[in-house]
Amino acid sequence: MSVSSEHSDVASRTLKIGMVGFGPFGQFLGKTMIRQGHLLRVTSRTDYSELCAHMGISFFRDIGAFFEAENDVVLICTSILSLTEVVRSMPLDRLKRPTLFADVLSVKEHPRNVLLRVLPEESDVLCTHPMFGPQSGKDGWKGLTFMYDRVRIRDEGICSSFLHIFQSEGCRMLEMSCEEHDKVAARSQFITHTIGRILSEMEIQSTAINTKGFETLIQLKESTVRDSFDLFSGLFVHNRFAQKELQNLELALNKVKQKLVEKMGEEEQD
Amino acid sequence: MSVSSEHSDVASRTLKIGMVGFGPFGQFLGKTMIRQGHLLRVTSRTDYSELCAHMGISFFRDIGAFFEAENDVVLICTSILSLTEVVRSMPLDRLKRPTLFADVLSVKEHPRNVLLRVLPEESDVLCTHPMFGPQSGKDGWKGLTFMYDRVRIRDEGICSSFLHIFQSEGCRMLEMSCEEHDKVAARSQFITHTIGRILSEMEIQSTAINTKGFETLIQLKESTVRDSFDLFSGLFVHNRFAQKELQNLELALNKVKQKLVEKMGEEEQD
Repeated sequence: MSVSSEHSDVASRTLKIGMVGFGPFGQFLGKTMIRQGHLLRVTSRTDYSELCAHMGISFFRDIGAFFEAENDVVLICTSILSLTEVVRSMPLDRLKRPTLFADVLSVKEHPRNVLLRVLPEESDVLCTHPMFGPQSGKDGWKGLTFMYDRVRIRDEGICSSFLHIFQSEGCRMLEMSCEEHDKVAARSQFITHTIGRILSEMEIQSTAINTKGFETLIQLKESTVRDSFDLFSGLFVHNRFAQKELQNLELALNKVKQKLVEKMGEEEQD
Repeated sequence: MSVSSEHSDVASRTLKIGMVGFGPFGQFLGKTMIRQGHLLRVTSRTDYSELCAHMGISFFRDIGAFFEAENDVVLICTSILSLTEVVRSMPLDRLKRPTLFADVLSVKEHPRNVLLRVLPEESDVLCTHPMFGPQSGKDGWKGLTFMYDRVRIRDEGICSSFLHIFQSEGCRMLEMSCEEHDKVAARSQFITHTIGRILSEMEIQSTAINTKGFETLIQLKESTVRDSFDLFSGLFVHNRFAQKELQNLELALNKVKQKLVEKMGEEEQD
C-alpha cells in the first residue's frame, strides 16, 4: 500500500474517455473530467442523450459505434450488480486498438476478475475506488482518498494521465490491492451501510430530545438510503469478505445483549 | 410537551444546592452553578474532599451533616445503577425543612418512582435530564436541550430558580413527562449507545479507505466508550422501554440480513 498526493512528473495528456454507465456517480466524475478538458463519450442502457447533449458529451445509443470510437480509456461506471451483464454484452471485437479499461465500483475483486476473464489480453486494466461521491465530494476532491490497483498496465502514459485526473484535484492517491481493499471495505463501508439500513428499517426519527450522537445516526441513516439498495446489496454479494463481517456484527450485537441481560439479572438480585 | 427558551419572569435567587454524587457529570454541572453564584455542597461515597476544596465547595463526609445543612435543593447526580442504594441510605429524618429533590439521571421513570416512594410527602420532586454532557456542552449550553418533569412541586420559587440555572445559559427548556422521556430515549439515546458498544465489540478501527460515514461511526464508538458501561447498562436496566427497542434493533438486523441473502440467491441464479 502506498500513498502519494504529489503531482506526478509524467506529462499528462488530454484523454478520450468512454464511460459505460452514466448514473449519478458517473455524472459526478464526468463533470470534473470535462472541466479538465478531457473528451467524454457515454454509452448506457438508459437513454441519457438529452442530459449528455446538455453537458456537451456525445451519447452513443449504438454500443458498437461506442467501441469503434477509439477511446483511450473505457471507464466502467455501472452498478456492481449489472457489471457482469454489461461487460458480457460489450462488442469487444469492435475495439480498434489496445485500450485501458478502468472501473470505479465500490468492490474491487469482482470487476478485476470479470475484466481479466472477458477482455482481450492486450487491454490494460486499472481497478479504482474513489472513496467519495456526489455528497462528500461536492466541494471538491482535495484530501479525499482515491484507491487504485494497477492490475495489468503496459501503456504507462495513458494510465498515469488517467490517474492524473484525480491527482491534480488534490486526491490522496492510494495504491492498494483489490483483495486488501475488499477486506478493509467489508469492515468499514459495508458495515456503515448496514447500520444505516438497520436504522432505516427501525424507522428512527429525530426526537425532541436528540443527543449529539443520535443526530449523527439520523444523518447516517439519511445518507445511506440516498444510495440505492442495489449499491448496498452489491457491497455484500460481490465482496467475499462481507458475509463474515455481517456475522461479526450479529455476534457483537449478541455479546452486547448478553452483557445487558446479565447486568439486569445482577440488579434484580440486589 | 412544551418548549421554551425565553427567560422566566420569576425572580431567580441564589440557591444552596447539595449535590449527592460528584462524578464527571456532577462536576460538569457544578462548575456552571458556582459561576452563577450558587452555593454548592457535595456528599459522595467517593472522597472528593480535595477536588471540592480546590473548587471552593464544602465536601461532607458525614451524610447526616449534609442533610442538616438546609439545602434549598438536593440534586441527585449518582449513577443510574446506584440510585436506589444511595437514596435508601439517606438519613431523611435529618432534613430540617421541606426540600426540593431534583435528579439529572438519563432515565426518568426510575428516579421518579424511587423518590416518590422514599421521600417525605412534603419534599418537592423535579426530574430532569440535561441532553448534553462534558463533551457536547464543553463550549456552553446555548441551544442544548434541558428536559424536565415537575413531578411534585409546591414551592414554585425554588423550582423556578433551579430551572433558571439552565434557562439563563440558553438551554432549550423542554417540559415532558418521565414516561414520554423514557419511551423516546429508548429509541434514541439507548440505541445510539448500543450501536457504539456493538462497534466497540467489533473492534472497528480507522482504515486507509474511510468513507465519511464510517468516520462518523468511529467517532460514535469513541464517544460511547468514554461513558461507563454502568451508564449504558443503566439505560437498559432502568428504562422499561429499552428491552423492546433492543428487540427492534435485532429484528431490523435480521430483516436487512434476509434481504441481502435473498439478493444473493437471485444473483446466483442469474
